[in-house]
Amino acid sequence: MSNTVTYKNYDVEKYKTPTGSHLTCKGWVQEAALRMLLNNLNPEVAERPDDLIVYGGRGKAARNFEALDNIIASLKKLESNQTLLIQSGKPVGILQTHTDAPRVLLSNSQLVPNWANWQHFDELERKGLMMYGQMTAGSWIYIGSQGIVQGTYETFAAVARKHFNGTLKGTLSVTAGLGGMGGAQPLSVTMNEGVCLVAEVEEWRIDKRLETKYLDVKYTNIDEAIDAAVAAKAAGKALSIGVLCNAVHLLQRLIERNIAIDTLTDQTSAHDPLIGYIPHTLTNQQANELRTKDKEQYLALAYDSMKLHVELMLALQAKGAVTFDYGNNLRARAKEHGLQNAFDFPGFVPAYIRPLFCEGKGPFRWAALSGDPADIAVTDELIANLFPENESLQRWLKLAKERIAFQGLPARICWLGQGEREKAGLAFNELVRTGKVKAPIVIGRDHLDTGSVASPNRETEAMQDGSDAVADWPILNALVNTAGGASWVSLHHGGGVGMGYSIHAGMVIVADGTEEAAARLSRVLRNDPGMGVIRHADAGYDVAIDTAKKHNLTL
Amino acid sequence: MSNTVTYKNYDVEKYKTPTGSHLTCKGWVQEAALRMLLNNLNPEVAERPDDLIVYGGRGKAARNFEALDNIIASLKKLESNQTLLIQSGKPVGILQTHTDAPRVLLSNSQLVPNWANWQHFDELERKGLMMYGQMTAGSWIYIGSQGIVQGTYETFAAVARKHFNGTLKGTLSVTAGLGGMGGAQPLSVTMNEGVCLVAEVEEWRIDKRLETKYLDVKYTNIDEAIDAAVAAKAAGKALSIGVLCNAVHLLQRLIERNIAIDTLTDQTSAHDPLIGYIPHTLTNQQANELRTKDKEQYLALAYDSMKLHVELMLALQAKGAVTFDYGNNLRARAKEHGLQNAFDFPGFVPAYIRPLFCEGKGPFRWAALSGDPADIAVTDELIANLFPENESLQRWLKLAKERIAFQGLPARICWLGQGEREKAGLAFNELVRTGKVKAPIVIGRDHLDTGSVASPNRETEAMQDGSDAVADWPILNALVNTAGGASWVSLHHGGGVGMGYSIHAGMVIVADGTEEAAARLSRVLRNDPGMGVIRHADAGYDVAIDTAKKHNLTL
Ligand SMILES: NC(=O)c1ccc[n+]([C@@H]2O[C@H](COP(=O)([O-])OP(=O)(O)OC[C@H]3O[C@@H](n4cnc5c(N)ncnc54)[C@H](O)[C@@H]3O)[C@@H](O)[C@H]2O)c1
Ligand SMILES: NC(=O)c1ccc[n+]([C@@H]2O[C@H](COP(=O)([O-])OP(=O)(O)OC[C@H]3O[C@@H](n4cnc5c(N)ncnc54)[C@H](O)[C@@H]3O)[C@@H](O)[C@H]2O)c1
Repeated sequence: MSNTVTYKNYDVEKYKTPTGSHLTCKGWVQEAALRMLLNNLNPEVAERPDDLIVYGGRGKAARNFEALDNIIASLKKLESNQTLLIQSGKPVGILQTHTDAPRVLLSNSQLVPNWANWQHFDELERKGLMMYGQMTAGSWIYIGSQGIVQGTYETFAAVARKHFNGTLKGTLSVTAGLGGMGGAQPLSVTMNEGVCLVAEVEEWRIDKRLETKYLDVKYTNIDEAIDAAVAAKAAGKALSIGVLCNAVHLLQRLIERNIAIDTLTDQTSAHDPLIGYIPHTLTNQQANELRTKDKEQYLALAYDSMKLHVELMLALQAKGAVTFDYGNNLRARAKEHGLQNAFDFPGFVPAYIRPLFCEGKGPFRWAALSGDPADIAVTDELIANLFPENESLQRWLKLAKERIAFQGLPARICWLGQGEREKAGLAFNELVRTGKVKAPIVIGRDHLDTGSVASPNRETEAMQDGSDAVADWPILNALVNTAGGASWVSLHHGGGVGMGYSIHAGMVIVADGTEEAAARLSRVLRNDPGMGVIRHADAGYDVAIDTAKKHNLTL
Repeated sequence: MSNTVTYKNYDVEKYKTPTGSHLTCKGWVQEAALRMLLNNLNPEVAERPDDLIVYGGRGKAARNFEALDNIIASLKKLESNQTLLIQSGKPVGILQTHTDAPRVLLSNSQLVPNWANWQHFDELERKGLMMYGQMTAGSWIYIGSQGIVQGTYETFAAVARKHFNGTLKGTLSVTAGLGGMGGAQPLSVTMNEGVCLVAEVEEWRIDKRLETKYLDVKYTNIDEAIDAAVAAKAAGKALSIGVLCNAVHLLQRLIERNIAIDTLTDQTSAHDPLIGYIPHTLTNQQANELRTKDKEQYLALAYDSMKLHVELMLALQAKGAVTFDYGNNLRARAKEHGLQNAFDFPGFVPAYIRPLFCEGKGPFRWAALSGDPADIAVTDELIANLFPENESLQRWLKLAKERIAFQGLPARICWLGQGEREKAGLAFNELVRTGKVKAPIVIGRDHLDTGSVASPNRETEAMQDGSDAVADWPILNALVNTAGGASWVSLHHGGGVGMGYSIHAGMVIVADGTEEAAARLSRVLRNDPGMGVIRHADAGYDVAIDTAKKHNLTL
């Protein structure tokens, strides 16, 4: 291994993910947990292995290295009728259960609500009593940035289905921000066959996206970038263009030139106005200086800029652009600064993701425990054959193969709905049983899914019946997945929106080719999205009510 | 049925609890859920059946009558490999699981923490989206006031063990308040062979306790009451005395007369100063008038009085009385009013209950599904034979038979610890198998138990390691009981301390005499208190660390 980074705590050899078809634990479910835990911490996957941080700033896979070593030892001795309990990243017990029960149960970062704030959490973390689990970090099913690309792809695919007959071909999408998540936008748009024009103030960010081929071309002149975008759109060519400028300046110029644009959003880090948003009235250097010199003044300029930013978005919406907020709180900032109609364009969840949730659709993912990319190729082909009528899925599979580099264990993500997940899971189990893949396949999902999260500022924003904050749903989801026999189940607090703002459940299940696994897969992959269909039907969404009827999910 | 109360919504015939040995559902586990749900609402058990309120002010068993009817219908059609999901008192789905999984999973009153307050809850309740589950109300295992008597008995038994060689014989306990919970104090003290002197300002409360024989005698003169108490103590006689006076006046007089008292606590409703606490400077009538006329003035007098109350308690503590707070927040009130050393006497949980929790002890309870009191007599005898060395248990069983009237289905409560619960559960299953009882027995517990609650102002107050607010533990408890195959499992928020202040889990398991039930009982009744032992061992309590070692609960 030519690993040039050196670590203080993370031992590259000791924590290497086992691969291949031989067990190092007493069963494949335990083995899967071990491999996925170590995969989460693999330097190709994790943000900071040395701090056990997987992603999302502070999302960890284990509380500390002592806990990590104890988890590993526990998984190795765990029998196939026992269950290991993990409390905020620390193993606390092994109890007798039965073969159809989960092998691991995890609860991460859960606090009694009145104490559910960063201050108290940080105090507990300092005392060594807690860790932040994020979503898939603490539940051992993070598999790198493919998830972000696919989620963004799926959003633009939903936009395409709703407004452009299923493809962005011949359309122009405008946005800003090429950071950790925003960098997935250009690739997601071109995968949907459209043209993407992205404003970004940091040149190195643009260059980084060019390198990984998430972005096609760079411009430093706004007009030239616009001309290239308009030409590509006219030619029906998929093309992504990064332009080195402030989002506000790009939108101003588009309006001045009266350019017709088709979709409009933004992924600057407006949620953090001091660090994440550069006012259009400052250069980068001026911004860096002012931020440390005069915080108040910086914030005042940032708010002025964000207000203008939203005004420009509203103006373009009025001219016909399909406009939505991408979860960065830009609308809220503008409203705080006096723009009364800031919320005249919708958030992406209510507008595009919720209709998918109503059909039980969400971020289904799987990894090849063998470590062999050929195994994922086999599953890719299988999925393509199983769902020939699903166009955006077909396009994704084809392009993902070309454009997505594996990180750690080879893995794939695609959004599947009620019925489809069960079908896929059973088919994977057959692949394992018949030896078409070299080792079992582990199946999971993000916590951001149809039935597994309560998060009033994001996934459950503006529910039709006002039930945004009701947390019974993710809890029932965790309980029913435990009852159904998922391989490991987790319940977390905080996730991507922070302490106090969400409760969400994780689920992972192993297809090891046995008959017993088939029965469990059938139950869990039906019930897990089923909870989402039920939750949305209960809230009154027609599509969910129909899906529930069709799949026999009514009382 | 000679039921003289008439109800608007509650249909006495329709909602009558089935009894006997014949099934009305498709299996005994479903049948048990049905019977216990209806038993919770039985007018002999429930506070206000017409509002579906079981106990604790607003603790409900079902969201509304439509939900109740749907739950009943669902339980009747539920197969023995399916699971019914209940979201805050409303049935929302029946999903395929397996025979060893719970038949019902419930989540009640759970809110995303930032919205976890009464205001938001009330709004959701008004919209028909939620209900308050309290602890055993929404988890279908409330069985009337026996639980309160036994909990209070157990606290005084713990006081006796710690300070008085295992019995209160020849000691004088002083307290105040003969309300819903406080009324259990005199009986609990005499059951522990001691003398109890209770101040109460409302004469009808005293009379009510005399009627049900929870209290032995009433005095209206403080000195006569004190004389009677001192005489009984000298004679080593168990006697409970209610005295019509303010708590403050009783304590002042005890100090003036320099009476030696042995234990001291208080159960006025000091948690609610406006409604629940009568200042010693007012008569009841004056209090009632002032409360409506001048709220601020009332509160000022109540706080003055509570501060003095605690000062008197501290003075008696200094003279040697074993003094503790009984969960009514009296200390906090005094401190808010400037008494710096108000917390110089401990809360009852850290002082007396937690040591029991460390051994896995908690409120184990069971009910005879046959409805036949003779079945409970059989179980009483069995328990007495199983644990001959447990003195306070033997005393409780003997006296409970004489003093506790059954409400609804005949039931019994006693505190059992790690190892004991499993032993009892398996023995009950044998009783059913061999036909020594007429129908299966249902086993449960309060949520106020060793491993099932996070509640920083009560059950987890002042944990040794500062982990009071960590809610991972009750969540793991619910998950592991689901994994082990409990009959129904619930996770609630709020309970006795209200919105935002606690997260707690419920568990019920049916002994139906089958071999499969025996396996489940063994797992669940080991793991459920085991989580408590593990939780307290993790927090550093020596007794728990020893118990964990002894019962093989370490990693
Ligand atoms: N599921 C969701 O809700 C969801 C999904 C994706 C992104 N988001 C949100 O989107 C935002 C972006 O996420 P990220 O991880 O990419 O953040 P990031 O901080 O890594 O990147 C933000 C980028 O925006 C650029 N930028 C800042 N101000 C600008 C301006 N005025 N004009 C042009 N560029 C500017 C910065 O240089 C940076 O490259 C965050 O607020 C995130 O929370 C939310
Ligand atoms: N597990 C626990 O934490 C726990 C257990 C038991 C009780 N409690 C607490 O104990 C308190 C009592 O509960 P309850 O259900 O019996 O309440 P309640 O309101 O039914 O009864 C309180 C009684 O105190 C009397 N009273 C009020 N002020 C008085 C005074 N100054 N002197 C004498 N009598 C006075 C009232 O007349 C009333 O009968 C509550 O605060 C409750 O929360 C807590």
